[in-house]
Amino acid sequence: MAFPEAFLTTDAQSPVMTAYTATVTVRLKRGVLDPEAETTKRALERLGFELDALRSADRFELDLDADDADDAAERATEMADRLLANPTIHDYDVEVEARE
Amino acid sequence: MAFPEAFLTTDAQSPVMTAYTATVTVRLKRGVLDPEAETTKRALERLGFELDALRSADRFELDLDADDADDAAERATEMADRLLANPTIHDYDVEVEARE
Repeated sequence: MAFPEAFLTTDAQSPVMTAYTATVTVRLKRGVLDPEAETTKRALERLGFELDALRSADRFELDLDADDADDAAERATEMADRLLANPTIHDYDVEVEARE
Repeated sequence: MAFPEAFLTTDAQSPVMTAYTATVTVRLKRGVLDPEAETTKRALERLGFELDALRSADRFELDLDADDADDAAERATEMADRLLANPTIHDYDVEVEARE
């Protein structure tokens, strides 16, 4: 017995999507000056803390639905390339984990 | 034979320190508005990306020398309390790993 065509069509149009959180961490490339981090480091030292170095980074947590983890990582990488990171001065990495 | 006192004193003043990197992630508390994240989410949607939510966070990587990982975490937590996070609007977490 064949499945009714309508059922197959519906199934094809709404595949099972999984909820993921992709974390994109955007850092300044090595050698790019970071005056904000330098100021924060000096402020900590003025408070009496000792530290060798301080680096700051931006972290974006993106909740999205995707077919699988690879699909989620690919879309997050595209978002980083298009908007979240500036390739001239930034490096970034992407981590994906399932939500809930 | 006893150790010369000078040696013991020197030893006590410079115990073996290990190099750690403490990562402090500072997030807005749930319920605190984040217009910058909202703007970034809308900009991504305008580019054609679909996403359920976007949260932004600041990440500080602190290089410091400490007796052990607990000591490093304690100092990073104190830095977060004193300067890196604003307890009224921020939550933070601290992760420590040995450097090199």
